[in-house]
Amino acid sequence: MPEGFEAASTDLPSDQPDDLTPVAGGGLLHRRALLKRGLVFCSATASAVSTAGSEAVAASPPDAVSDASGNFPLWMQTPGAPFSTYGVPSKHESQVVRRIGANRLAPGNGVSWTPLEDLEGFITPTGLHFERHHNGVPEIDPAHHTLTIHGRVKQPLAFSVADLLRYPMRSHLIFIECGGNSNAGWHAVPIQRPVGSFHGMVSCSEWTGVPLSLLLSEAGVDPSATWAIAEGADAIAMNVSLPVSKLMDDCIVALYQNGERLRPEHGYPMRLIAPGWEGVLNVKWLHRLELTDQPVMARNETAKYTELQPDGRARQFTFVMEAKSLITSPSHGQHLAGPGFYEITGLAWSGRGRIRRVEVSADGGKSWADAALQDPVLPRCLTRFRAPWRWSGQPAILKSRATDESGHVQPERKALVAQRGTNGYFHCNAIVSWGVDEDGDVMHVYA
Amino acid sequence: MPEGFEAASTDLPSDQPDDLTPVAGGGLLHRRALLKRGLVFCSATASAVSTAGSEAVAASPPDAVSDASGNFPLWMQTPGAPFSTYGVPSKHESQVVRRIGANRLAPGNGVSWTPLEDLEGFITPTGLHFERHHNGVPEIDPAHHTLTIHGRVKQPLAFSVADLLRYPMRSHLIFIECGGNSNAGWHAVPIQRPVGSFHGMVSCSEWTGVPLSLLLSEAGVDPSATWAIAEGADAIAMNVSLPVSKLMDDCIVALYQNGERLRPEHGYPMRLIAPGWEGVLNVKWLHRLELTDQPVMARNETAKYTELQPDGRARQFTFVMEAKSLITSPSHGQHLAGPGFYEITGLAWSGRGRIRRVEVSADGGKSWADAALQDPVLPRCLTRFRAPWRWSGQPAILKSRATDESGHVQPERKALVAQRGTNGYFHCNAIVSWGVDEDGDVMHVYA
Repeated sequence: MPEGFEAASTDLPSDQPDDLTPVAGGGLLHRRALLKRGLVFCSATASAVSTAGSEAVAASPPDAVSDASGNFPLWMQTPGAPFSTYGVPSKHESQVVRRIGANRLAPGNGVSWTPLEDLEGFITPTGLHFERHHNGVPEIDPAHHTLTIHGRVKQPLAFSVADLLRYPMRSHLIFIECGGNSNAGWHAVPIQRPVGSFHGMVSCSEWTGVPLSLLLSEAGVDPSATWAIAEGADAIAMNVSLPVSKLMDDCIVALYQNGERLRPEHGYPMRLIAPGWEGVLNVKWLHRLELTDQPVMARNETAKYTELQPDGRARQFTFVMEAKSLITSPSHGQHLAGPGFYEITGLAWSGRGRIRRVEVSADGGKSWADAALQDPVLPRCLTRFRAPWRWSGQPAILKSRATDESGHVQPERKALVAQRGTNGYFHCNAIVSWGVDEDGDVMHVYA
Repeated sequence: MPEGFEAASTDLPSDQPDDLTPVAGGGLLHRRALLKRGLVFCSATASAVSTAGSEAVAASPPDAVSDASGNFPLWMQTPGAPFSTYGVPSKHESQVVRRIGANRLAPGNGVSWTPLEDLEGFITPTGLHFERHHNGVPEIDPAHHTLTIHGRVKQPLAFSVADLLRYPMRSHLIFIECGGNSNAGWHAVPIQRPVGSFHGMVSCSEWTGVPLSLLLSEAGVDPSATWAIAEGADAIAMNVSLPVSKLMDDCIVALYQNGERLRPEHGYPMRLIAPGWEGVLNVKWLHRLELTDQPVMARNETAKYTELQPDGRARQFTFVMEAKSLITSPSHGQHLAGPGFYEITGLAWSGRGRIRRVEVSADGGKSWADAALQDPVLPRCLTRFRAPWRWSGQPAILKSRATDESGHVQPERKALVAQRGTNGYFHCNAIVSWGVDEDGDVMHVYA
C-alpha cells in the first residue's frame, strides 16, 4: 500500500471481496478502488503502441516518440534553455492566474481569486494565493518598518525586521480563508462560475514567523488587556480586534511564506497569522498591536465582517472558519468525455482543527460514500480528498460533506439558509452541489 | 502549548525546574526553552517606545509609526499597487536567487542551487527549487508530448497529458536531493561558501501525479521485467535504470508541483518522482519507460552517479539518500551580533523514512542536545529543527546529527572518509561543522 493513503485507510476492512461494487448511489466506489491495479481509467483515450521493434530499441527512443518521418520532436533536437535564477510557470499554463475582482474607482480595493479548479494537492502556489486588499499593496521599505506593541503593556516595544529574525520561529502549514468566501452561495439562483471564482478566497501555505506569545511576554501584558487592535501599514491603516488569548495561544508574526520571505501582496515584510480564523484577522503589513480592554469597533468588524440575521440582529466576531469542503473536479465548466471511471477530488478544511471525514454523494445527497483523505491531514490546513466514481452517463448530482474533529458537520444549503437567512454575506460553509447532465457538462445547482 | 511543537515534545518531562540550565556544552539549552515566555532574545536590539500618550491613541497609529515630524511613512500616504494575476517576490529580496554553476561551453549542463540560508520552514519555493540539467530545459508543447510504456509489457501504451489527467492521483510531500549534493565535503580543505551553494541541491515540494503502479498494470508487466529504463525528452535523452519494484511501490508520474502544473525546469509536462531516491532518478520531461530484464548501463549510472572506493571498485545503484542534516542558521558567512540567545535551526531528511531525532552540539561534538522537530515530521521530507542556544562570546563549533526511523545515524566526516575515501564524489552525508569565532563570524570547519 503506497504511503500517501496509509493513515487514512487503516480503518478499512481488508477482506472486501470486490472493490468495484458501488458503495453508494450514482456509481460511487469504495475509496480503496483508487489504488486498485488494473482498474482501467481511460483505455478509450490512452493509445496502444505498435510493438514492432519496440523490444529491440533499448536506450534509443521508440517509434512512439518520433513522427511519421522518424524525426524526434523539435525539443530533442537542440540544446534546451539555460538555468534561471528564479523560475516561472510554463507559457503553456498562462491561463492559470488569479482572477481579479476590484473596484473600478479604487483598483486597490477588491479581491483576487485562487483558481482552485486548476490546482492539485493542498499547497497553493504563492503566486496564486488569493488576495483581499482594502487600499492596495503598499511598497514598504523593510529597513524602515517596525512592529510596535503598546497600550496595556509594561513596556511598549518596537521590533524591526532584523530584531524579529533573531527570535525563535515556528511554522504553521495552514489555510487562510476570507470570511466572505463563497458568498455567492447566499444568492437565490446558483451562480455559474468556475469553482475558484466562487470559492477561491481560500489558499494554503506554510507560514513561518515569531510566536506572538514571546513578543507580548517581552512587552509584559497587563492583566486588564483582553483585546488587541492589529493594524496594517497600508494606506487605509486597516485594523481589526482580536482577543489577547488568541494571540498568546497560537498566533505568529510571519516573515516567511512557503519557505521564502513574504511577497508584497501577502504582507511583506510581516503579517499577523491567526490560524483557523477568518482571513481579515490575518493582518498584512502588520505595524501595530495595541493592547486594550475592549474591541476597537473598526469598520471591518462592524459595517463589514458581521452577519445580518433573519431577526435583524447581526452576528459579530465570528472568528472561526467552520468545516467546509468542495469538489474541485468535476466542477462547473468541466466536461466529462463519456461514461466510465473518474476520480472525484476536492478540498476540505476547518478552523477548529483536523478534518476527520469527507463524504461524497453522486445522487444529490440520497446516499454517501467516504472519500480517501490524502496524507498529511493537518489541523487548520487544507486536506485533499479523493473518491472513485463510475459515471453511467445519466444525469448526476455530486456533493461533498466535511466533518471536523470537533464534530461539526458541513450543513446542506437549505439548513444553513433556514438558520441564518440569506443576508449574512459572510461565513457560507454550505455543501456545494454540481450537476452533471447527460452530455457530461457540469454546472452549479442547488439540490 | 502551541500546536506546532506538541508532537515533538510529548516525550519531555514536564516538571523540569529550570529551562535555562544548559543541557549540553557551549550553552545549549533545553529545546523547551524555545517556547518559554519571557525569555528575552534581543532586548539589546528591540527598541523601547515612549509610553507618552500611547494609551490614548486608540485606533490611530501611535507616534512610533510616524517620523519626527509626525508624518506617516510614504506607503501609508497613498493608495497601494493594484492586484496581480501572478505574484512575484519583493524587489527588496532580489538577492534571494538560485546560484548557477554551469559549463561555459554548454550552458545547459550544470546546476543551480537553492539558497537554503535565506529560507525558513521546509517547503522550497518552486522558483528556487534546485536544478540539475544535462542539456538544458526543453521547451515542450504539452499537446505533443506522450509517455510511452513499452518493452516487457503485454500491451505497449502511450499516455498523453490529457490521458493522465483522467487518472487517480496521489501527492508526495518530499525532498529531492541530487546524488552529488554536498560533494565539496570530500575536499581536503573545508570549502567556504554559503550553505546553499554547498548543500543546496536539495529542495522540498508537494508533487502530485498518477501512481505508476496503475499505468504499469494497465500495460501489463511481464514477469521477466525487473528493471525499467526511464528517459527524458531533453536533447540528451537523459536516461537511467530503476527496479520495477520501486516503480510499483511508490513512484508517480508527477504533473503538479506545489499545487500548480510543473514548471519547465522541473520537468513540464511530466516527471518521474522516485521518493527518497537520488535526484537523477526523478527523470524530468519523462517520455519513455522501457521495461527490461537488466539495467541499461547508461552514462549516468556508470561514468557518473557511481562512487569510486578506496579499493578501486565503485559503488553503483546507490539509490537511497541516507539520513542527513545541516544547520542553516548560524551558518557560513553569517555574523552573530554579540553574546546572548540565538535559535540554531536547520533541516534534516532521510530517503529511508521519517527523521526520528536531530541532535545539536555547540562544542564540536563533545556533547549533544536534542533539537525540537517542527511538525509535521513526514517520511522522506525535509524536517525543520530548532534548538535554543546562549552564546557566551567564546569560539564555538556547531554541528547537527540526524537519526532516521531506520536507525541510520548521520556519520562524522572522519568516519565517512575512513569508510569511503575521498574520491566517491556522490552521497556525502557527513555531519557539517560551523566554527564561530570570538567576533561572531561563522565559517565552515572540519572538526
